[in-house]
Amino acid sequence: MIESAQVKANPNLLVFVPILYTVWSDAILTPSEISVLEGLINSQGWLTDTEKAFLLSKINPATPPTADELMSWRSAISQVADPKIANETLVNLGIRLASLTGDGTISETLVQAKPSLSNIESTLGLISHEAIFNFHTGHKTITSEQSTQQNFSVSEMTKILDGDYSEIIKKVKTFISDPEFQYMSPGDLMLYRTRVLQWCKFLAEQGFGAMAYPKEYGGKGDMGSYFAIMETLSYHDLSMVIKFGVQFGLWGMSVYFLGTEKHHKKYLKDIGTLELPGCFAMTETNHGSNVKGIETTATYDHLTQTFNIHTPNEFARKEYIGNAALHGQMATVFAKLIVDGKDYGVSALIVPLRDKKGKVLPGVTIKDCGRKMGLNGVDNGVIYFNHVVVPKENLLDRFTSVNAEGKFESPIASDNRRFFTMLGTLVGGRIGIPRSGNSASKSGLTIAIRYGDQRRQFGPEGGTEVPILNYRTHQRRLMPLLATSYALHFSLQYLTNRFLNRTEEDMQEIEALAAGLKSFATWNTTATLQECRECCGGKGYLSENRIEVLKNDTDIYTTFEGDNTVLLQLVAKSRLTEFKQEFSNMNVFTILNYVADQAKTSITEMNPITIRNTSEEHLLDPEFQLSAFKYRERDILTSAAKRLKKHIDSGMDSFDAFNVCQHHLVQVGLAYIERIILEQFILQIEKTNDAGCKTTLKKLCDLFALSQIDKNKGWYLEQGYMEGSKTKAIRRLVNQLCWDIRQDAVPLVNAFNIPDACLAAPIAVNR
Amino acid sequence: MIESAQVKANPNLLVFVPILYTVWSDAILTPSEISVLEGLINSQGWLTDTEKAFLLSKINPATPPTADELMSWRSAISQVADPKIANETLVNLGIRLASLTGDGTISETLVQAKPSLSNIESTLGLISHEAIFNFHTGHKTITSEQSTQQNFSVSEMTKILDGDYSEIIKKVKTFISDPEFQYMSPGDLMLYRTRVLQWCKFLAEQGFGAMAYPKEYGGKGDMGSYFAIMETLSYHDLSMVIKFGVQFGLWGMSVYFLGTEKHHKKYLKDIGTLELPGCFAMTETNHGSNVKGIETTATYDHLTQTFNIHTPNEFARKEYIGNAALHGQMATVFAKLIVDGKDYGVSALIVPLRDKKGKVLPGVTIKDCGRKMGLNGVDNGVIYFNHVVVPKENLLDRFTSVNAEGKFESPIASDNRRFFTMLGTLVGGRIGIPRSGNSASKSGLTIAIRYGDQRRQFGPEGGTEVPILNYRTHQRRLMPLLATSYALHFSLQYLTNRFLNRTEEDMQEIEALAAGLKSFATWNTTATLQECRECCGGKGYLSENRIEVLKNDTDIYTTFEGDNTVLLQLVAKSRLTEFKQEFSNMNVFTILNYVADQAKTSITEMNPITIRNTSEEHLLDPEFQLSAFKYRERDILTSAAKRLKKHIDSGMDSFDAFNVCQHHLVQVGLAYIERIILEQFILQIEKTNDAGCKTTLKKLCDLFALSQIDKNKGWYLEQGYMEGSKTKAIRRLVNQLCWDIRQDAVPLVNAFNIPDACLAAPIAVNR
Repeated sequence: MIESAQVKANPNLLVFVPILYTVWSDAILTPSEISVLEGLINSQGWLTDTEKAFLLSKINPATPPTADELMSWRSAISQVADPKIANETLVNLGIRLASLTGDGTISETLVQAKPSLSNIESTLGLISHEAIFNFHTGHKTITSEQSTQQNFSVSEMTKILDGDYSEIIKKVKTFISDPEFQYMSPGDLMLYRTRVLQWCKFLAEQGFGAMAYPKEYGGKGDMGSYFAIMETLSYHDLSMVIKFGVQFGLWGMSVYFLGTEKHHKKYLKDIGTLELPGCFAMTETNHGSNVKGIETTATYDHLTQTFNIHTPNEFARKEYIGNAALHGQMATVFAKLIVDGKDYGVSALIVPLRDKKGKVLPGVTIKDCGRKMGLNGVDNGVIYFNHVVVPKENLLDRFTSVNAEGKFESPIASDNRRFFTMLGTLVGGRIGIPRSGNSASKSGLTIAIRYGDQRRQFGPEGGTEVPILNYRTHQRRLMPLLATSYALHFSLQYLTNRFLNRTEEDMQEIEALAAGLKSFATWNTTATLQECRECCGGKGYLSENRIEVLKNDTDIYTTFEGDNTVLLQLVAKSRLTEFKQEFSNMNVFTILNYVADQAKTSITEMNPITIRNTSEEHLLDPEFQLSAFKYRERDILTSAAKRLKKHIDSGMDSFDAFNVCQHHLVQVGLAYIERIILEQFILQIEKTNDAGCKTTLKKLCDLFALSQIDKNKGWYLEQGYMEGSKTKAIRRLVNQLCWDIRQDAVPLVNAFNIPDACLAAPIAVNR
Repeated sequence: MIESAQVKANPNLLVFVPILYTVWSDAILTPSEISVLEGLINSQGWLTDTEKAFLLSKINPATPPTADELMSWRSAISQVADPKIANETLVNLGIRLASLTGDGTISETLVQAKPSLSNIESTLGLISHEAIFNFHTGHKTITSEQSTQQNFSVSEMTKILDGDYSEIIKKVKTFISDPEFQYMSPGDLMLYRTRVLQWCKFLAEQGFGAMAYPKEYGGKGDMGSYFAIMETLSYHDLSMVIKFGVQFGLWGMSVYFLGTEKHHKKYLKDIGTLELPGCFAMTETNHGSNVKGIETTATYDHLTQTFNIHTPNEFARKEYIGNAALHGQMATVFAKLIVDGKDYGVSALIVPLRDKKGKVLPGVTIKDCGRKMGLNGVDNGVIYFNHVVVPKENLLDRFTSVNAEGKFESPIASDNRRFFTMLGTLVGGRIGIPRSGNSASKSGLTIAIRYGDQRRQFGPEGGTEVPILNYRTHQRRLMPLLATSYALHFSLQYLTNRFLNRTEEDMQEIEALAAGLKSFATWNTTATLQECRECCGGKGYLSENRIEVLKNDTDIYTTFEGDNTVLLQLVAKSRLTEFKQEFSNMNVFTILNYVADQAKTSITEMNPITIRNTSEEHLLDPEFQLSAFKYRERDILTSAAKRLKKHIDSGMDSFDAFNVCQHHLVQVGLAYIERIILEQFILQIEKTNDAGCKTTLKKLCDLFALSQIDKNKGWYLEQGYMEGSKTKAIRRLVNQLCWDIRQDAVPLVNAFNIPDACLAAPIAVNR
C-alpha cells in the first residue's frame, strides 16, 4: 500500500507514517509547529542522516507529499488501527505498522526510540488524540448515539394540556384542517384579506365567534371555550386569528362589556354571525400607549339628543384599526365626552362607518395602512371623522351616560378611575393574545425540534453524521424554550381560570397577572421563533416552512393590547401598592420590624450552607427553586420601593423618580410573573397522576426554573444569595437537563398535537 | 367654586378637600385603604359628629362624589396650589384652602389638628407626593426637559466614519438616491426580482461591480472600495446588495481566486459588467454547514478530457443558490473530484446553466425556492445535474488540477487542508456581510432614534407629554445598540484593513477574526432591528417604515456565509491551537509556570481593592475596561482548554469532549471578538483629533464596554473578578451613560449620513 519504496522497506521510517499523515491531514497545524517538529526529528539519535533528511523533506511545506501518497499512508495505517485498543497513540500505530515489514516483532531500535517518538507525538497535542479516530471505521460516540425515546404517553400529555376543553379543541382542529383552510401567499393583499374574511365567516357559522356571548344573542355564554378556540385557531393563519379577535373579541366584547342591554339586543347577534363586521377604534396616531390622552371628541347636543364625533387634527386619527380598511361597517370609537362644554374624559360610542354595501359613509374617511411586517390578511386602516353625528343611544353607557336633563352621569366620579375600570372589562384581550402567541411558539418548536431530530450535520471522523439536536448548543437554544412553552401553557390556563371566576376584589390582581403574562409570553414568542428560525438555518428562511409567517405575524403581539414595557410598569405599580402603606408609615418601629423581617430572610435563606449547597437533590427541590424566585421577587420589589421613597423624600419629582427607577420597575414586573409561572407549573405537576408525564413535566419544570436562575445569576450573586460554586452547579445541571430532555423533545412537541395541515412545513411533516 | 354648600362654608371640611380629591382621582386606592382612612377620620377629636358623618359619606364607595363635584374640588385646589413651594403637602394645601373662607388666617383648630391630618395624609403614601403635582399647571420635570443637543460636529464624525473611502461612499450615496432606485413592494416576486437585476446593471455600468477585479479585466483592483460600496449600498434595498454580492463577490471572486489566468481572461470582464450573470453553487440540501460532505460529483474522463457533473440523489441538490431561479447563466459548482476512480475531495468547476436567451441547458434542472422571509428580490433556486459534461478547462485549477497524463495534482496534499485553503480565499464574504448588516443596524437606529426623539407619550400630570427617548427603558434599549454599531464600524474597518494587507501567515488569524466578527455583528443586527421595531411600536410594524424589510432581509445573515454557532466554534478551535502546545507539553515545570502566571493575574487584577473599586474614574479607565475583557477572554479560553484536556485524558472521545464543551467554546469565540472590538474602539479614540468627536466617541466606547461587562456580570461575579458593589456601580454608570448619550443620539445617527431617499421611513424623514 505504501507507494514510496523508500518508506515501504524501512521500519524506522514506517514508524513515522501515522505522525506524518496527521501533520498533513490536519488543516490547522501552524508553521511554527512544523519547525518544532523539525527540531525533534533532528534530535533523534537512532535515525541515520539519510533517514532524517527524508523525514525532514516530508514535513517541509515546500516538498509536500502528493495527495495519492497521503491516501496510501492512510490506508496502510487503517490496516493496523483497532478501535478496541484503549489509549491508542500514533507511536503505537507506527510501531505496529513498522513491525509488518519484518517477522511481526518490534525491533530493539524502536523499543528504545519509543520515548523520543512519544515526545514528538505529544507535541501534536490534542490533535494526536483526535487523529486516532481518523483511522477507525464506523466511529461511534455518545453524541452520535443519542436519539428520541418514548418515556411517556403522548396522548396522556395531550389530555393534560387540553384539560377541560379537549372536545372544543378537537372540533376546532378538525375544522381548520379542512382543505378550505389551505394557506395562501400574502403576495396579493386583496386576495389574502378576502380569504381571511371568508375563513372567519366559516368559523362564525360554527358558532365559534359567538361562543362567549349570552345564549339569547346566539352564543353559549362560554368564555372559557372562546379562549380555547382562539388558542387552537392560532395553530393556523394568525391573520385569521386576529381578524377573528377583532370582530368577536374587541368589537363584540366592547359592545357587550361597555354597552347595556339595548346595545346587546341591537348588535350582538349580528356581530356573532359576522353579519355586522366592526372595529375597535381606540388607538390614535399620537396616542397609543397613553390612550387616556386621545383627542377625538364626542360632543353632546341636548337639543338634537346626538353626539358629534370629530377628529380635531391629523394626529388624532384612529390608526392601525383592524377590519377598518375594507370590511368594518361600524366601530366602537373611543372619544373624549364633552357635555355642557365640560370634558368628562374617555368614553366609547358606536359609530357607523360603511353602509351594507361597503360604501364609506359621509364624514368618515378611511385609509389603508398598507403592507405590514405581518398579519397582512387583516385590513388595518386609519379612520377619521369630520363632525359625524350619531344618536344619543349610540353611547356605550354602562359606565358613562347622559341623563334626561342632558347632564353627565357615571357611577365612577374620577375620569381616571372610570377609564381604567372600562379598560379592565376588556382584559380578555390580554389573555387571548398571550395564549395565541404561545400557540405560535409551539408551532415553531414543533417544526424546529422535528427538523433538528432528522437533520444531520458533521459527525465523528469515520462515523455517520449526527442529528443536529444532539449538539449541546442546539439543545441549549431549544430545550429551555420548550420548557418555557409548557410553563406558560399552565400559567395561562391559571390566568384564564382566575378571569372566568373573577370577583370585583380580584380585578386588580387579575389585571396585573394578565399584563405581566401577556408581556412575558409575547416576548417569549418573539425569542422562541427567532431561535427556531436560526436553528432551521436556510430551511427556516423559506416561507414554505412557516417560521417566517409565525414570527412576523406575532411580532406585533409585544406591542398591541399594550406595549410590554409599559405594561410591566403597570404591573410594578400594582405590586408597589401592596408596599405603599408599609413604607409611607415607616417610623422607627416599623423600620425595625422591616429590618427584622429582612434578617429572618438571611437566617433561613442566606445561611452559608444554603448559598453554597450544590447538591443535585437541593437544586431540583421545588422548594429551593420557588424560594429563590420568591426571594428575587420580594427583594426587587422592596428595593424598588425604597429607591422610589428615597428619591421622592429627597424632593425629586415623582415623575422623575419613576423614570429613574423605570428599568428596575420592569424587573419588578418580570420577577413577579416568573414566580407565578413557576408556582403554577409546580402545582400542575403535583396534580398530575400519570407517572410518565409527571416525571417528564418535572424535568421541564426543573429546566425552566434553573435556566431562569441561570439567566439571573448575576443578580443572585450580587445579592450574595448564591455563591459562584452554586451558580456553576446550576449551569451544569441546565446543560444536563437539556441533554436529558432532548430525547423527550419530539414526543413533547407531538403532545401539542398540532394538525399536520396547520404545521404545513415540509421540514416538519410528510416524513 | 365648591358646589356643595356644606363644604363651601366650613373650613373643617374644606381642609379635607385635597385629600378627598386625591382619594377619588386615584385609580389604584384599594378598599382596605379606604377602611383605614375611615378609622383615622373617626379618631379626629376636633371634628363634630356631623362633620365626621359628612366626611365618611364622601369616602364611602356607595355614595361617591359626582364627576362635577370632583371637577369643582380640583379647580378650587388649583387656586391655592403653588409650584414654587417645596415639600408641599395635601394638608398644607387644605389649610390654605380653608383659610380662604375667613380672613385669610389659619384657625387655631386647624393648627392643632395639623399633626393628625398629616397622619391621614401619610397613610396615602407615595400617592400623596404625586398628587401635589396634579394641581400645578405647566408641570416641568427633569425627564420632560431632556432634549437633543449638539455637542460635536456631525460632519467631522462622518469623516471619521468614512475614513479613506469618503469619495466612493459619497458617489454611491448620490447614485442610489436617484429616483431610478425608488423602493418597490415585494408583493409581486417577478417584478421585484426584475427590478433588482436592473438596479445591479446600473451599478455595474458605474464600475461598482468590477471594482475589485484587476484593471485588465475592467476593474480597478480596489478591494477596499468594493467593501465600501457593499456597505454603502446596504443603506438601500438589501436584495440588491445580496444580488450584487452573489454576482460580483461569490461568482466573480470564486472565478478570480479559485481559477487561473485562463478563467480570468475568459470570464471576469463579462462578470464585472453583468453581461454574464452567474451563481455560486456550494450548499446542498443535506450539506450546509458541513460543506466538506457535499455529494455532487465531477468525474474526470481522460479520453474525452471532460468532467461529468452529477447529482447522485435529491439531498445532494444545490439549494438556496442566489441568481439561480431566473438569471444565472453559469455557476461555480462545488463537487467531489473523482479522478481515476479516486475521490480527491471538494473542487470547483464552472458549469453553464442557461443559454444567452435564458433557456436552461440539457441535463440541468432548476427550481425556484419561492417566497422567503426576506431578500425576495433575489431569485434563489435549487439546481441539480444529470450527467452534465463540461470541458477539462472548466475546472477552477488554482488548487486542484488534472495533468496531461490525467493524474490529479495539487500543491496541497491533504483534502482537508486544501478545502480550507480554498474557503480561505473566499473570506471576503465574511467581511462584506457583517459590514452590510451593520449598515442595516444603522438604518434601523436612525429610524428608531429620530422617531423616539419626536414621539411623545405620557408625561407629568399637568405637563406636556415627553419624548419617548427620554424614558430610561427606551434609552436602555437603544443607546447600547447605538454604541455597539459604532464599535462594530471601527472593528470591521480593522478587519478589512487586515484582509487588504494580508500575508500568508496572517490568514489563520484573519479567518478567525472574520468568522468571529461576522457572528457577533450579524446577531447584533438581528437584535438591533428587533429592538428598533418594538421601540417604534405600531409604526415600526408598518412596512412603509422599513424596519420590517431591514429585519427580514438581514435575518439570514446569521446563517449564510457560515452559521454563527458553527463559526464561533471554528474561532474557538483556532484560539485553542495557541494553547495546544502549552497544554500537551504540560509537565511539572510548565504546570508550575502556568500556575505562577495565574497567580500573577490574581496579584495584579484580583486584589481586593480592585475588585471593589467603584470609582467612576476607575470604571471609565480604558485600561480597566480592556483588562476586564482580556481577563475574561483568557480565562474562558484556558478553562475550555483544561476542560477538553481533562475529558480527553479521561478517555472520552474527542468528538464527545468537544460537544460537552460546545457552549463553552462559543463563549471562547465571543470573548475573543469582544476584546478585539473594544481594543479597536479604544485605538480609534486615541487617534481622533477633533475634541467634540473624541469626547462623544469616548462616551460611546464606555457604554459599549460597561454594558458588555454588565451583560457578563454573572461570569465576573462567579470568578470573583468583581464584587457585587462593583457590578452595581457599573449598572448605575450604564444607566447614566444612556441618559447622557441620549442627548447626542440624534446627531450620532445623523453622522451615519444615510440619504433620506434610502431611509424612506415617513417616521424618520420629511419632518
